[in-house]
Amino acid sequence: MISTMQDEPLSLATLLKYGTTFHSDSEVSTWTGTDLRRMTYGELGVEAAKLANGLRGLGVGEGDRVATFMWNNNEHMAAYGAVPAMGAVLHTLNIRLFPEQLIFVANHAEDKVVIVDGTLIPLLGKYLPSLKTVQHVIVANGDASALEAPAGVEVHSYTDLLAAQPDTFEWPEIDERAPAAACYTSGTTGDPKGVVYSHRSMYLHSMQVCTSNGMALSDADKTLAIVPMFHAMSWGLPHAALMVGASLVMPDRFLQPGPIAQILAAEKPTFAAAVPTVWLGLLQHLDANPQDITHLRNVVVGGSAVPPSLMHAFKEKHGVDILHAWGMTETSPLGSVAWPPAGLSDEEAWPYRYTQGRFPSNVQARLVDDDGTVVANDGEALGELQVRGPWITASYYSPDGATIDPDKFDDGWLRTGDVGKISAKGFLTLVDRSKDVIKSGGEWISSVDLENAVMSHPAVAEAAVIGVPDEKWDERPLVSVVLSPGQAATAEELRDYLSDKVAKWQLPERWTFIEEVPKTSVGKFDKKRLRAQYGEGELEITSLV
Amino acid sequence: MISTMQDEPLSLATLLKYGTTFHSDSEVSTWTGTDLRRMTYGELGVEAAKLANGLRGLGVGEGDRVATFMWNNNEHMAAYGAVPAMGAVLHTLNIRLFPEQLIFVANHAEDKVVIVDGTLIPLLGKYLPSLKTVQHVIVANGDASALEAPAGVEVHSYTDLLAAQPDTFEWPEIDERAPAAACYTSGTTGDPKGVVYSHRSMYLHSMQVCTSNGMALSDADKTLAIVPMFHAMSWGLPHAALMVGASLVMPDRFLQPGPIAQILAAEKPTFAAAVPTVWLGLLQHLDANPQDITHLRNVVVGGSAVPPSLMHAFKEKHGVDILHAWGMTETSPLGSVAWPPAGLSDEEAWPYRYTQGRFPSNVQARLVDDDGTVVANDGEALGELQVRGPWITASYYSPDGATIDPDKFDDGWLRTGDVGKISAKGFLTLVDRSKDVIKSGGEWISSVDLENAVMSHPAVAEAAVIGVPDEKWDERPLVSVVLSPGQAATAEELRDYLSDKVAKWQLPERWTFIEEVPKTSVGKFDKKRLRAQYGEGELEITSLV
Repeated sequence: MISTMQDEPLSLATLLKYGTTFHSDSEVSTWTGTDLRRMTYGELGVEAAKLANGLRGLGVGEGDRVATFMWNNNEHMAAYGAVPAMGAVLHTLNIRLFPEQLIFVANHAEDKVVIVDGTLIPLLGKYLPSLKTVQHVIVANGDASALEAPAGVEVHSYTDLLAAQPDTFEWPEIDERAPAAACYTSGTTGDPKGVVYSHRSMYLHSMQVCTSNGMALSDADKTLAIVPMFHAMSWGLPHAALMVGASLVMPDRFLQPGPIAQILAAEKPTFAAAVPTVWLGLLQHLDANPQDITHLRNVVVGGSAVPPSLMHAFKEKHGVDILHAWGMTETSPLGSVAWPPAGLSDEEAWPYRYTQGRFPSNVQARLVDDDGTVVANDGEALGELQVRGPWITASYYSPDGATIDPDKFDDGWLRTGDVGKISAKGFLTLVDRSKDVIKSGGEWISSVDLENAVMSHPAVAEAAVIGVPDEKWDERPLVSVVLSPGQAATAEELRDYLSDKVAKWQLPERWTFIEEVPKTSVGKFDKKRLRAQYGEGELEITSLV
Repeated sequence: MISTMQDEPLSLATLLKYGTTFHSDSEVSTWTGTDLRRMTYGELGVEAAKLANGLRGLGVGEGDRVATFMWNNNEHMAAYGAVPAMGAVLHTLNIRLFPEQLIFVANHAEDKVVIVDGTLIPLLGKYLPSLKTVQHVIVANGDASALEAPAGVEVHSYTDLLAAQPDTFEWPEIDERAPAAACYTSGTTGDPKGVVYSHRSMYLHSMQVCTSNGMALSDADKTLAIVPMFHAMSWGLPHAALMVGASLVMPDRFLQPGPIAQILAAEKPTFAAAVPTVWLGLLQHLDANPQDITHLRNVVVGGSAVPPSLMHAFKEKHGVDILHAWGMTETSPLGSVAWPPAGLSDEEAWPYRYTQGRFPSNVQARLVDDDGTVVANDGEALGELQVRGPWITASYYSPDGATIDPDKFDDGWLRTGDVGKISAKGFLTLVDRSKDVIKSGGEWISSVDLENAVMSHPAVAEAAVIGVPDEKWDERPLVSVVLSPGQAATAEELRDYLSDKVAKWQLPERWTFIEEVPKTSVGKFDKKRLRAQYGEGELEITSLV
């Protein structure tokens, strides 16, 4: 017996046609600093068709890479619609990459065209002479003549290019496994690594965003997409919005708390998505400038762990539920979302909200310990999180077929590099990065948990924990403490303080007092440097036995 | 550039494992007539594993058909879980088929095993000697010794078979295009036709049921699945429930209004699904026996058109929103669901609720007229509805590869046999079956619309409209009228009455007054017989010119 079902591909071309016809009154709109530039999805359909015709006129064919170097705005949305649907590949360049990384990724992906926002011309202009494969630059929202192009690169005005084009396009039938979009991780070590999403993966991911345990996006939503469109496809919101006719509100380059508050007041979105720092900034702004934001049914926050205090502040001061979520570029990015189980009281629900969330059926997850053994999902056992599923990457993009970073993959599973625990009900709690976890006598100690425990002492300003070699236990924690100005505490006192906060076998013997924790360029603890200082004998260690 | 995404199959085995672990506290429960037999999804996981082991012990291998002849209950749910997940094919036998049809489908599908409810033994027993491929019958919820088996057929007790089995099963990796379940249409003409769902189609359909514009099923839902599990997979609810941890309430054989009201009172489900007659019956029951049913957030009603009066009664008397939906066995069945566009007042929303609903992105739809031309989605032009998508059938199952009923397919689209119109926003309104629509001078006249208009006259009890040959217009309507007892009306009077209700060119010239409209066995107007009576000159026609 064989299935009689149609073999209809999951295609972003189908999705674009659908959203721009049956939901033609829904809108994408972009903040200008004072008001909004509005475009209905009906108009978006025409704009995407004109863009696709324009790109084809420039020689863009199946599988060719069209890069964007843009803020979140209407024109970027047109590229999201047109480029995959015409069979080309949308490569969203992260405008915040270091110059050498930006140049690397554009050359590695062999981008043929770059669409750039006028305000980003100065930035792109610096890199352009080093981009070896770029033949065309299209300037949106600005003056094309402001860009000095190197030899061999033609510059076009987005407006002029589109003006001359037909307003329909014969969107092709596309194999669902064909590439649709590419995104590079901005890893802190080594070259950025390319993740290439397929039509299938993006279509399924869009469905998940609209599912009750994803983001439950619907046509009742007006979604403020603060998370950049150059960062993991704006968490999948643009394509999901087309799927159900949710409207989109785009902040363009206005990402500071003041403008975000203005956009909230002007548009009263029902849903929003951004990293924790955006919400921290907004919270402080709202403390000084009160404003009703109860129009937000939920805001989804991910990218890094959300402090419980932030969630409580939004709930208790503003009546807004933060949805903690976990994912990464390699996971499209929707991994887990912390909807608490239904039917709980607020008080019972909080512990679930603090977690990184519950996995949906499409994201299989397991925890693997140092020996390669899968540990139980019992809410206690720690392991490195590994995931698999139809929108999880199987490898990094390699133009010549060479395998990149094979250690990130384990028998068909993606190694996330995160260490955590999973409850019997599928809720994930991350405790550390795998490279930072301390492996002591076969058990794992979370450096982050220890740091948080030490930092809760009133005399401590900062604390960073790294693993150092130990003859008996292989590895033991070393705590580097920065005392608050005018405060004093000894290693003994701090260890006593920890005695009812962490398990006895985790209590650190090794302590050092330093002036400042070394930081990376983005302000995270630089544990690599701490390890080097320890290795060079630069740290003065107190050993308690 | 190629996609780097994992090629993880969409598999009901993955879904079963997911739902029975991470949502192990959710429940399926079955009404016994007085209370509920409860089974958690954790217990369901064990039961499914035992059933899979038991079936394997009986020789069920990959692709083998395991039929069910059962009501909606816990054991049927175990079969829904186990059979596809072990790589076999679940064939849900419709207990209401005519005997010769039931025998045809079991032989056509080559069912190897039948699981039967104890209460259905007398019914199955009659057919069993004619089922040529069945080797094993498993009796659930009843006494296996009550079944007299023909030679070559072994009878097993479900309970005894499972008792001996291990409580885990190594669920295999399954190609997503492999068959998962089969369902035969109970067409009124010809042999029943087999639709074979794949793991891919059922997984995607489950996602749609949990999507905001599908049924928005979530773990907050307790779903009363009245629509039979032998009818288009209970509209996809069982597998969708596993996907998000929604609980299921099963009515078993207690389908009358009284027991349904008892189940509602006992379990207070949030969601329910059934055909219109069930809701009509419940409405009458509630009129006589008032009961609060506001725990129902929505009920989805499909299978045939829902009278607006029924929707209004549920909303206005009971505060419950009926969701009108359209689909068929060939469409898995979720086609369109009548969620009104967001943001409308109740009054503005009603016209949308009356429609058959809006299509989701996964169900592409077009209307095709008699010449094979695709007509506009303008809410006016009529055409036969054709659909395509990943959970729409491409053909009917044929064991020997012969093509069955090729006229039902048109260049990759399924011809639904329904005539309707689609609005610019994607809302479907069906007006007729394509074989009943009247083709007059190149334009189409809905027989159903004309019947409803005539039947709104106070003197008319029933009216049936068929198309009859016409020299000038090819076809024109003939109205067969049954007057109410003691009422009188002439053809002229009735035509005058219609003059402000239908377009002038649609006004019928031909009328006949009859004692009774001939009916089919299920109570529908038998237009085939009316056409025959007209052809034989048995009807006395009044012609107005």
